[in-house]
Amino acid sequence: MATEQSGEDAGIQLRDRIAALGAEAFHDASVRISQHAVVTPLLDTPAIDGRRIRLKCENLQATGSFKIRCAANVIEQLSPETLRRGVVTASAGNFAPALAIAGAPHGMRLICHIPEKSAAVKVAKLRALGVELVFHDFEAWWRIMQTRDTGMPEATFLHPVCEPNGIVGNGTIAIELADEWPEIDTVIVPFGGGGLVSGIATAMRAVRAGVKVYACEIEGAAPLAAAFAAGHPVTVDRQPNFASGPGRQSVLEIMWPLLREMLAGVITVTDAEARKAFRDLTLDSHLVVEAQSAIAYAAARSADHSGRNVAAVLSGGNIDRDALVAALAD
Amino acid sequence: MATEQSGEDAGIQLRDRIAALGAEAFHDASVRISQHAVVTPLLDTPAIDGRRIRLKCENLQATGSFKIRCAANVIEQLSPETLRRGVVTASAGNFAPALAIAGAPHGMRLICHIPEKSAAVKVAKLRALGVELVFHDFEAWWRIMQTRDTGMPEATFLHPVCEPNGIVGNGTIAIELADEWPEIDTVIVPFGGGGLVSGIATAMRAVRAGVKVYACEIEGAAPLAAAFAAGHPVTVDRQPNFASGPGRQSVLEIMWPLLREMLAGVITVTDAEARKAFRDLTLDSHLVVEAQSAIAYAAARSADHSGRNVAAVLSGGNIDRDALVAALAD
Repeated sequence: MATEQSGEDAGIQLRDRIAALGAEAFHDASVRISQHAVVTPLLDTPAIDGRRIRLKCENLQATGSFKIRCAANVIEQLSPETLRRGVVTASAGNFAPALAIAGAPHGMRLICHIPEKSAAVKVAKLRALGVELVFHDFEAWWRIMQTRDTGMPEATFLHPVCEPNGIVGNGTIAIELADEWPEIDTVIVPFGGGGLVSGIATAMRAVRAGVKVYACEIEGAAPLAAAFAAGHPVTVDRQPNFASGPGRQSVLEIMWPLLREMLAGVITVTDAEARKAFRDLTLDSHLVVEAQSAIAYAAARSADHSGRNVAAVLSGGNIDRDALVAALAD
Repeated sequence: MATEQSGEDAGIQLRDRIAALGAEAFHDASVRISQHAVVTPLLDTPAIDGRRIRLKCENLQATGSFKIRCAANVIEQLSPETLRRGVVTASAGNFAPALAIAGAPHGMRLICHIPEKSAAVKVAKLRALGVELVFHDFEAWWRIMQTRDTGMPEATFLHPVCEPNGIVGNGTIAIELADEWPEIDTVIVPFGGGGLVSGIATAMRAVRAGVKVYACEIEGAAPLAAAFAAGHPVTVDRQPNFASGPGRQSVLEIMWPLLREMLAGVITVTDAEARKAFRDLTLDSHLVVEAQSAIAYAAARSADHSGRNVAAVLSGGNIDRDALVAALAD
């Protein structure tokens, strides 16, 4: 109970800190990350039912994911002393490689706590980038995600989801969208931990108030929809689906106040809609994406956005060959 | 012999007409095609041996191919009377759909002569675009490509490779490359019929003389390398390979004088190099491409370009699912 309380307090603090930022904070971040992150393409797709849908292609970052924006904006604001002592994170995905790449010019030491069942290709990639790995079972790993306690007090812990400077780095996507598409009125963003969608929503409010920013999830693995329905984070059982295996999921307490305030809502798509979107992204738009990104495109096509100008954020493209081939199967 | 002679004469005429164009002809074309073609992304890849390689992503055109540049620049210069009488072409690939899309706003009738063994997915796509199809065996179809004689004198024949306005349309890629990458010194372009590489080479000579433009081919299916070796087009047997099945191939007589004058040379890659490049484009760069495009990336990586700034032109992404899955197999 004490932990939950402090999670909520921390969440209110985080929300207030992020919500106070003006447009210049996000513009500054765009400049700060520009040596690591590119301005990603915004590609048109066939119009549907009077709506226009464009794809914001974070899968075309050199690192294959939006996370380089987040990592670069964090790393570039660390002191030389902090960089010297090193950085520790808990990441099963794209955050650790992005930190390694952004930290490399500084000679930064990076330790990553990782679930022991992580894909071999991910482990090999982290090792090739010089990351020191510490393996945990999933429960212990998830506890680090919740408590930030790695037992390594000398190194600075960076959280893959809720670092304020990381959330601001993610918001640079909104700056680009507003620049590239003046008529944009809707943005749909995959929901992982909430750092991406809350960054985009907060930045959009600062530079183009009125643009609606939605998270999206897949049926049977929708902790954010459950949180909105209950009015607070609840744990849901995750059914195996196109985007991920079984498990348990909840929205991080610390992210909830920010998400509740900033998002226009959450859109849930079916497994079949996500699979069709993945296939069309591959064969019609010629983009390789992670399954999460297909959920965003599916949500842009399936939900009621008639007459609107909708950007679907393709958050990343780091999918291995077998998963790609499997996702293209009938 | 008479046909070959006239092919060579026509080739010299074509070369002289294209070679006389200045930069403004290509800049005008860029404006002319802008409602149909986008300025495609130029993406970085990991540096190799001190060379930088960037990918010019024509696979990210809405039509999935550079051919929309070619088609739009041709169609937009036809008279209302010509558009009313209709257009006929011989195409087994991306040219006919691009003509259909560029012609649609004009209500243009389009007839396409097509090899009878064309992939069902291509035939269905053309029918969906309202194209009238005439089927031929491969020999008869290739004769139309050489003679332009379709037995339909009332409709204007547009050749997929050697329309002067089409070649100029392809040259708009060079305009974008020169704008986007001032330090560019080398461009590598897949060789199909020669319209793409000669357009880029001619435009580059006009706007940035000194940039070397190479064609590329795959071992065992290299009619351009054979033409450079012999000093004139020769017919070669095509071995089945990663990019295409068996057959016979030669450089079109009409294209040879232009190619000989404009190109820095031709680079040949192995089947294994092309397969590796395809896989890396898919899994590291997150781009779906046609096999030909992987040859360009392979050539940029394999040939001796140390210290150079090399753009590989990814000509298109229209590959069907089975071919994509097969190309990713070990």
